[in-house]
Amino acid sequence: MLRPWDFKIVIRRDSKAAVFLQIAHALADEIKRGRLAPGTALPGSRELAESLDINRKTVIQAYAELEAQGWVTTEKTRGTFVSAHLPQIGRSAREPRRGRIPERPDFRLVGAAPNIPLILPEKNMLVFDDGAPDTRQIPVDALARAYRNALAARIRRGLGYGDPRGSEELRAAISNMLNIDRGLTTTPDNICLTRGSQMAIYLAARILAGPGDTVVMEELSYPPAREAFRLAGAEVVPVGLDAGGMRVDELEKICRKKRVRAVYVTPHHQFPTTVLMKPDRRLRLLAIAAQFGFAVVEDDYDHEFHFVHQPMLPLASFEIFGKVVYIGSLSKILSPSLRLGYLVGPRYFIDRAASEIMMIDRQGDPATEGAVSELIDSGELHRHTRKVMKLYGERREHFAGLLKSLFGNRIEFTIPDGGLAFWVTFRDTDLDRLAAAAARHGVTILPASAFTTTPRPVQAARLGFASMDQSELKKATQRLRAALDDSSLSRNGA
Amino acid sequence: MLRPWDFKIVIRRDSKAAVFLQIAHALADEIKRGRLAPGTALPGSRELAESLDINRKTVIQAYAELEAQGWVTTEKTRGTFVSAHLPQIGRSAREPRRGRIPERPDFRLVGAAPNIPLILPEKNMLVFDDGAPDTRQIPVDALARAYRNALAARIRRGLGYGDPRGSEELRAAISNMLNIDRGLTTTPDNICLTRGSQMAIYLAARILAGPGDTVVMEELSYPPAREAFRLAGAEVVPVGLDAGGMRVDELEKICRKKRVRAVYVTPHHQFPTTVLMKPDRRLRLLAIAAQFGFAVVEDDYDHEFHFVHQPMLPLASFEIFGKVVYIGSLSKILSPSLRLGYLVGPRYFIDRAASEIMMIDRQGDPATEGAVSELIDSGELHRHTRKVMKLYGERREHFAGLLKSLFGNRIEFTIPDGGLAFWVTFRDTDLDRLAAAAARHGVTILPASAFTTTPRPVQAARLGFASMDQSELKKATQRLRAALDDSSLSRNGA
Repeated sequence: MLRPWDFKIVIRRDSKAAVFLQIAHALADEIKRGRLAPGTALPGSRELAESLDINRKTVIQAYAELEAQGWVTTEKTRGTFVSAHLPQIGRSAREPRRGRIPERPDFRLVGAAPNIPLILPEKNMLVFDDGAPDTRQIPVDALARAYRNALAARIRRGLGYGDPRGSEELRAAISNMLNIDRGLTTTPDNICLTRGSQMAIYLAARILAGPGDTVVMEELSYPPAREAFRLAGAEVVPVGLDAGGMRVDELEKICRKKRVRAVYVTPHHQFPTTVLMKPDRRLRLLAIAAQFGFAVVEDDYDHEFHFVHQPMLPLASFEIFGKVVYIGSLSKILSPSLRLGYLVGPRYFIDRAASEIMMIDRQGDPATEGAVSELIDSGELHRHTRKVMKLYGERREHFAGLLKSLFGNRIEFTIPDGGLAFWVTFRDTDLDRLAAAAARHGVTILPASAFTTTPRPVQAARLGFASMDQSELKKATQRLRAALDDSSLSRNGA
Repeated sequence: MLRPWDFKIVIRRDSKAAVFLQIAHALADEIKRGRLAPGTALPGSRELAESLDINRKTVIQAYAELEAQGWVTTEKTRGTFVSAHLPQIGRSAREPRRGRIPERPDFRLVGAAPNIPLILPEKNMLVFDDGAPDTRQIPVDALARAYRNALAARIRRGLGYGDPRGSEELRAAISNMLNIDRGLTTTPDNICLTRGSQMAIYLAARILAGPGDTVVMEELSYPPAREAFRLAGAEVVPVGLDAGGMRVDELEKICRKKRVRAVYVTPHHQFPTTVLMKPDRRLRLLAIAAQFGFAVVEDDYDHEFHFVHQPMLPLASFEIFGKVVYIGSLSKILSPSLRLGYLVGPRYFIDRAASEIMMIDRQGDPATEGAVSELIDSGELHRHTRKVMKLYGERREHFAGLLKSLFGNRIEFTIPDGGLAFWVTFRDTDLDRLAAAAARHGVTILPASAFTTTPRPVQAARLGFASMDQSELKKATQRLRAALDDSSLSRNGA
């Protein structure tokens, strides 16, 4: 028979786990490690209790638990034994260190990881992001109230899982908004809610392109979209762009050579260059789509933010909507953290997206969806939009002034008509070196190289201005100016 | 020059869209459709205003908008013209019906849709679901309060996007819970939050298996998991199961023939049969995993709900954790609608999962994540668990009594030690016909055929009991009994 001192049970009084469970788990662990072989007799409960200085009842409880789980058997008069039918486990020579999961798994991973850089905010760093809103503006009280209402309403209805396309009420509210404000002609069946616009892009990529297919994107574009199409198996081919948007003449040439299945485009405020795609290019793009039978994936990621004239109607508002998959988001107007985007298209396409969602994450959070549809219906979202539009408009002016006064003719930029970022070209500057110097000065910038896979260097950066207030903008711009001096210096010195 | 009566502008006074925008959009639409050719002169603003019975300023505003967007040009003395540089669009012969998106897209969709049936609750139907909790039990006030706090805290910190693995605080709370209650030895770096356990399964499938690989699942298993592995390109091979869980002897034979990369298993409460996997099988499974180098994907979907003894420690608590990917969920204990699951594994694996998330949906909702970690830290989740455990324990007893009294020896079942569903075998009954008859009687059941791809008929159904209260359970069971009489009748009569 095993003596209690042949193995070690450490009881942690400060642990939240009950003592009997700690004992049961420790003994099961010895069995699993092969240190208590099948058939081994365990110490008597009295003996073990004494050696551990605990109540005997606790040991009996632990043994009962082990028996219920099948690790041990109890024979009335003879005592408790490690189950004889357990397989013999050799006591492992290389004992894994207790309290550590190995860093690397013992199994193989397939494929390659997506290549999407992750920029996390660091302490004391100011960030010129890619055009994010200021999350400090979220209408907390209104949103929390709406969330509570949605949760309670949901419970009244007693629903568990729901429609993978998302809650009917929010799809209806979005459909209505698209029809009134953006010239589309949708019903809620044309809409599928997604977790942020990223999931809408991911779904479109999965459904529209596979191995052997070609997808076209502007040479400077949104890297997570490029990666989603690439990992769906498609070849992503870059096309040029200029002040009028995508070079549709180049696109047509590509279509003559390759089997183009989809063209990803951000016509409202080109990502990252902020350019508005001109009407003639828009019409031409749709005509080419009709000719070659590809889908136009229109990512209208920050439709609302247009400062000069009304937002331009999307491509999806054109009559030949059977060619366009439209992607929108509530992330920019409310908060990225709500994870609310949407995919719009022909019903057949939307139903397929819903099937994919069943497999990917089943559905979104109906309480959040309900809360946002309340904010839309009550007009709160409209009020909020007016408020932040004014704020961002001021920051846009302020930032333009800062850039002019601090950089003068070292840079070139056009104040963008819309969107939450500037595209700034730096004269005679290596932007990657500038970005590195900026990081040392406590400010993050996204150089053009972050948005392209082509080697041609572009001496520009996308500078989001909306997430910082005026004093933060000033500080960040000053740091960038200091970094520019540094990086010029070091280059001249090199 | 065009006369106003040559085209039609319908102004809807009840629309929320401003009148000037309605005019601008209608004119842009005529241009896009090719009915206003490039170079065409638009009516004078006075003339158009009169014909529409609106203020002339509104028309001027509309023309200015169209000019800003590039659709028209204004020449000082001569008037307003459709931009001459727009491409000529032939007036389409087949005019698409206004107000409708075509049902089918003009582009091709790749691959096949995932085959996951969707069961939506219908009015007046009672549902024996697959083991869902009663969402009416959600602690609404506590959750809504925690949500508000998390939202406010987040705003204080001024964060936009965050860690794709999920919020540090909730990962820490889950890591702690796994270490105390489930015998794992994790750090927060071993944990990645997912939108429900479905996303954890989807990620595991993406990362572990591709074309040419084999994945093994029990012949009766969880269809969305099967579909996730199948669509990742793997061949899914069924293995037998009996009262001790997966037939590991059969698994070993499969491993000798095929390149098995992953084995998906629900050892705690086998889905759908509720069987607990016996310790000897568990040890054997891990030994085979070590021998053949595959990953064990352990889906512990409703760990908490064990009524007879303490929950059994998961496979992932064994020392050789480098072989196990563990999937858990907060859906069953709180609410499926929160969409909170998690994936646990070696750090290298978790980092890869995080990369995939960057592409799929970027991250979860930090406000929800923060709210739930507050519920864990405050002990609210523990209190809630105790409350619902008592409730579900009562419903379990009640349902067992109902089945015995209403069905007698027409059925066979064992009261499950854990989980929120019964596995009930019906003597001499075609379960698919019974399910159809049940639907006519106003109750939904899931027959064995819903969980398998093998043609061998199994005369059993999985009956979730937790989401209905005692009176609903009674009504649902009575309906099922009536359906059984019906379906027996019709078979005898056929």
